[in-house]
Order: sequence, then C-alpha cells, then structure tokens
Amino acid sequence: MTLPAGSAVTSPVVHLVGAGPGAADLLTVRAARILADADVVFHDQLVTDEVLAIAHPAQLVPVGRRCGTVVATHEAVIDRIVEAAAAGRRVVRLKGGDPVVFGRGGEEALDLARRGIATELVPGISSCIAAPELAGIPLTHRGLSTGFLVVTGHRSDGPGLEARDAAIAGAFDGTVVVLMGGTRLREICRQLRHHGRATGTPAAVISDAGRPGQRVVVGDLGSLPALAAARIGTPAVLVVGDVVAVREAVRGALRESAQGRGRRTSTAACL
Amino acid sequence: MTLPAGSAVTSPVVHLVGAGPGAADLLTVRAARILADADVVFHDQLVTDEVLAIAHPAQLVPVGRRCGTVVATHEAVIDRIVEAAAAGRRVVRLKGGDPVVFGRGGEEALDLARRGIATELVPGISSCIAAPELAGIPLTHRGLSTGFLVVTGHRSDGPGLEARDAAIAGAFDGTVVVLMGGTRLREICRQLRHHGRATGTPAAVISDAGRPGQRVVVGDLGSLPALAAARIGTPAVLVVGDVVAVREAVRGALRESAQGRGRRTSTAACL
Repeated sequence: MTLPAGSAVTSPVVHLVGAGPGAADLLTVRAARILADADVVFHDQLVTDEVLAIAHPAQLVPVGRRCGTVVATHEAVIDRIVEAAAAGRRVVRLKGGDPVVFGRGGEEALDLARRGIATELVPGISSCIAAPELAGIPLTHRGLSTGFLVVTGHRSDGPGLEARDAAIAGAFDGTVVVLMGGTRLREICRQLRHHGRATGTPAAVISDAGRPGQRVVVGDLGSLPALAAARIGTPAVLVVGDVVAVREAVRGALRESAQGRGRRTSTAACL
Repeated sequence: MTLPAGSAVTSPVVHLVGAGPGAADLLTVRAARILADADVVFHDQLVTDEVLAIAHPAQLVPVGRRCGTVVATHEAVIDRIVEAAAAGRRVVRLKGGDPVVFGRGGEEALDLARRGIATELVPGISSCIAAPELAGIPLTHRGLSTGFLVVTGHRSDGPGLEARDAAIAGAFDGTVVVLMGGTRLREICRQLRHHGRATGTPAAVISDAGRPGQRVVVGDLGSLPALAAARIGTPAVLVVGDVVAVREAVRGALRESAQGRGRRTSTAACL
C-alpha cells in the first residue's frame, strides 16, 4: 500500500468484474456490457462456460487455482494483465461471485495500481447471499435472524475455519455462511458445535446454485456431513441457522427459475 | 409456515426481484428482462427512478416505508399483489438491494404461498457488499479480514444495534457492516466500542453508492459520527474494520464508474 493517496493514475483501465454464481443472466447489465466489449478476459477457473460465452469473441485466459492446483501465480497473472493493458487491449479480470468477497480483488487492484494500471470494480452477485436464496433460504428473516456472518472455510494451514472465526460463528445466534468449505464440512460443523452451536442447529449445503446441476442437502450440524458426503459438489456454500427451516415452508411455492429447471435437488434429509 | 412441504403451487407467479444499489446497470440481466416484461411493479421507496424507468410502461405502485412512514401495510401490499396476480397481470415485487437481506423477502414469499401464489426469487446486488466496494473498500482482504458480519442498525424498539449483535460485532475482529444505521451512527459506534472494538478502528459510512450523489466519509469509531453529521444521506452503509484503510491505497487507481462520475466524495477525514 505504498501508492500515494490520491495519486492520479489514468488510462489504461482494467475492469475487475464479478461473474456472479454461474447463470449468465445473473451477471449485472454492466458486467455483461463490459464482457461483450472485451478484447481479453483473464478468468478464474470457477467462472462458467455460459458466462464466458458472453465475452465472445474475446481471448479467454484461464488463471487462478482450482482444488489447490495453481494454474498461474498471482504475480504472473498481474504481469500478463499489465502487458495486455499496456498494449491497449480492453482487459477484463473476471472472478466468480463478487470480486471483493474472498476474491482477492482488493489485492489485485493494489498490485495493478503499483504498476500504473487503474481499476474499475464491477460488483457481482455473491454466492454467500444468492446460493441460499436460490435454494429458498433467506439470510435474514424476522424472528429468526437479524444478521449474518460470512467466513471462509478454506484455510491455508489446515482444514476448517480460522480459530477466531470459529469462536465468533459459534457464539453468534444469527445466520452463518461458510464459503469454500465444501470439502471440510465435517471439521467445520465440529468447530461450530465445539464453540457453542447446538448439534440440532439447522444447516444446509448448496452447490451449483441456480443452475441445472443445483444440489441442496439439508440437515443439522450433527447430520449434515454424512448426508452431504458424495452428494454435493464443490464449490459449495454452507449455511447454518434457523433460517434454513424457512426453505421447507417456501419451497413448494418457489418456482424453479429458468436456470434451475431440471435441477437435481436432494431433499431426503430435509427438515 | 403452515404450507405443507412440497405442496404444488402452480401459476400465477410473482417475481420477487432485487433492484441492487441504485444504478440501473447494476440490475442483473434477469431482473432487467423481468422488469421490462412486467405489467405492474410494487416497489419499495428506496428503488431509484433510473431502475424504475426499466419497467416502462408498467404500472408503478410505491409501497413499503420510508423514514418510518408506512405507505402501505404489509398485509395491504400482499392483498394488492394477490389481486393483480389473480387477474393475470405479470407482477413484480421490487426491493432495493437483495430481497432476502433485510428485505423481508422470505416473509412475503411465505405470505404469498399461503394465498396460493408462487414466487420466483431474483437476487440483486446488495449494498452490504457493493457500497463499500464501490467506495474502494473490499470486505475481505488477505492479512486484514477473513470474513464479515452484516447486521441491521434499525431496531424497532430503540436506536442502534440489537444487544446480541452488538456483542458479537464488538468481539469480532473482521469487517462489520451495518445497514440502515445512518441516523444512529453515534449510538452504533458507541456500542461497538463498549463491546471491545478500539476507538481507533477504521470506519467509513457511504450513501448513494456508485451514483452521482455518492458520499463517503472515513474516520474511526471515535471520530466518525461527528465527521458524518450532516454530510451523509440515508440510507447509508457503515463499514468498520482494517479493510477501510485499503481505500486510500486503491483510491487513486480506482476509476470512477460511469454512474459515479461527478460524485461528491468527502475525504477531509480520510485515514
């Protein structure tokens, strides 16, 4: 953060764009327009083909990591973005969900700024809100939850939540959302119980939210890991709290969206 | 929640749509398409004119409340939606931000279900993430914040945060976002300090995010209320935590978006 405050960095500009949860029509109008105008799109592995199709005929460059395998280092990505922007190409850096929710968007904006590249942040629909919502689970609901906590389940030094996040999530009686915890469900549910959440607290895990392959498994902090094993893909969103019970009440009345038709929804374990 | 689980509710369908933070091109593509096809739009007071223009020539019906003044009761709104849907009109219920983040979207979906009306939830860009983001503040940032807590500053029984939310927000060392707390900043900052956050914790308040009237005031939990007084509109988003400091580092390199050009940004109190 050595950039002088208020220093004027003018063109070139890189658009740092949120791709949303996967369905192309859950892009914002602004993001769709910027993608359609792009010359080159550096995209995370999690961005779906239907979103990338919006960028046609731009050059598509996969970067980032998937399941721990690094396709390109952070520094290499910045180098390539700087090179393309300096060459006068219209560059988009496209990230799943929203670029500043565990997307390292702030870091990339800082690194680009140090290299003289301006950034425009374009918000995206974040799975932390939309994945539960598309499954019929509102993060807030009068009488059930006056707020929500969003943490990452992907720690660099071991499975599960950061210790300080686990302590807060265990003490909180609102809704807890864990992103990137799909492969560590057992440990995360154990941490939440250890820090005070009752074993019977409703919990659900959702993958491919709002897409044809959407899967939702519902249980509680005790039962969920076994129920979800082998039945949920990654990335997955874990949501914990009484709001999970709202799903059953609204589910019969929730029309499957155009993107969600034909989805396979696992409900054997529903509350 | 008396609706039998899995009961089949078919047409008519009401779309419960998130309008995003205000700029029309921050609607999702899906929301813009549904608005353009609508016959009647029941909208909250906070939805901007530029978003409502997308729905032209649909009938626009303002509902909800503003500054405590109820335009139509919840029950009256449900009655009117049911009436319009039963008459075969294409009905949209349009809410600022996302419909399930303090939008009572889950409640309305339940009430409509009890009346035989199916709902399709359409996520929107929530100000809880996008307002800080558009002001250059990422909610997560490696080394500064591994998660964020979102709570409401609008309690029915008095000023400030719910006591249990204040206790958690005070103990949490990640990012705290308070929606609808613009008129209660002094009390909310006092609560956070009382529950353990240092007086020097960076804090910012943002109104009209990403729009020509955008205002951002930056300070800390001690200074912010006085700095923001009379300089920030409502609704406003309060963000508290070390990530606020990222703004100064990226700000010079953040291009103002098309919607944000000409904005008045108050930075006299910047960190």
